[in-house]
Amino acid sequence: MNLILLEPGEVIGGEATLAGDRARHLRTVLKVTAGQSVRIGQIDGPLGTASVAGINDDRVTLRCAFDDATPPRPPVDLLLAVPRPKVLRRLWAQLAALGVGRIILTNAARVERPYFDTHVLTPACYRPLLIEGLQQARDTRLPIVTIHRQFRPLIEDHLDALAGDSLRVVGDPTATTPLGRVADGARTSSGQRALVAVGPEGGWNDFELSLLEAHRFERVTMGQRTLRSDTACIALLSRVHAALS
Amino acid sequence: MNLILLEPGEVIGGEATLAGDRARHLRTVLKVTAGQSVRIGQIDGPLGTASVAGINDDRVTLRCAFDDATPPRPPVDLLLAVPRPKVLRRLWAQLAALGVGRIILTNAARVERPYFDTHVLTPACYRPLLIEGLQQARDTRLPIVTIHRQFRPLIEDHLDALAGDSLRVVGDPTATTPLGRVADGARTSSGQRALVAVGPEGGWNDFELSLLEAHRFERVTMGQRTLRSDTACIALLSRVHAALS
Repeated sequence: MNLILLEPGEVIGGEATLAGDRARHLRTVLKVTAGQSVRIGQIDGPLGTASVAGINDDRVTLRCAFDDATPPRPPVDLLLAVPRPKVLRRLWAQLAALGVGRIILTNAARVERPYFDTHVLTPACYRPLLIEGLQQARDTRLPIVTIHRQFRPLIEDHLDALAGDSLRVVGDPTATTPLGRVADGARTSSGQRALVAVGPEGGWNDFELSLLEAHRFERVTMGQRTLRSDTACIALLSRVHAALS
Repeated sequence: MNLILLEPGEVIGGEATLAGDRARHLRTVLKVTAGQSVRIGQIDGPLGTASVAGINDDRVTLRCAFDDATPPRPPVDLLLAVPRPKVLRRLWAQLAALGVGRIILTNAARVERPYFDTHVLTPACYRPLLIEGLQQARDTRLPIVTIHRQFRPLIEDHLDALAGDSLRVVGDPTATTPLGRVADGARTSSGQRALVAVGPEGGWNDFELSLLEAHRFERVTMGQRTLRSDTACIALLSRVHAALS
């Protein structure tokens, strides 16, 4: 944890009293003492600094001072075909750490049906993992997660509302256009967002790729190597962040 | 598995008879039948094609034909401070899939001593995971792994023999030079290799960063976000591959 994230309701009269993981981290990893200052943030709110006001048994009380401004939402969104539960579980924290504004999870022909019925797709599972990633990366902006069981209505009817003006790219092993060339245009207009599509194991099928292309996605090459869905997400998000910066 | 990798000794008279995971994959995932052709490769040797010559109980016999040339070694090497065993276990296959020529694991001030005494650092553990990554990415070139318990002798005395002429970069949160600017020079000289250094959780200390700089490592920025060691490896390797291509 490079930052202690607080829920908005946890700060009362400028103070927050923590138990559980964050208190344990403060006591046993950071080994804080009274008066010491620690980095804090409010979920979807500003960063700030707290001084340790008290340590009692397994609780730590922080006196909180927040900045005026909330950090901007990361300029990259992800459209991801639901991966195997084991892969997705590992991915949540890493996505939040890399920085994504939205995570749009979708069905696809090569997504196995049972993947939708797992605990890993419930906020009870993914929210703490996203917060873990934000605390790693010192960000406060919780990615907005939506889950779509039908690919075609998502792309045709809902995507513009979710990511209207974004530069849209889809990694495709048969493409030859490098990401950099697509991103060059985006970099010149400030505030430009990007939407990155990552397919299922086995890839998007032809219909899905055509539908994505018909909705302004440009196919970009990620090299010759076929990557697992989680590796591909991290690699592509990292490159898009670099291309936009 | 997008490729079935064979050990050099497994192919006798042009045929290989497989049991275990690869045979199971051929039978239950690819559901091969006699005469069907599958992609193969020989570890550290050429890619090729095999036809299924026979399926008996849990064994599959392949008749193998290999290309003339062996794929080139990936042009990127990794210098990595040994991460937590749980993180490293997850990383092996992903590193091989992304493509690294060498994985140079090192001690550092912020590496915890017990990390060196784990099963995850033994070839019995990491070799099958590296092969899994190669089979994912359709490569045959097994990364060369070396483990160094002393940072300073590694950098001062051994690194030139391991990665002499490489472009050397180290991710540093305080740096302002983008990776692209460092890589621009490299891209112009064909055959240029790169060596990427990723520090421990908590980062390299000042002595280590200075020693790296004194040995031709350029500090590059990876943005403001602090990433976990595995996420940082994937992000940085992916960007370096893109910069060199």
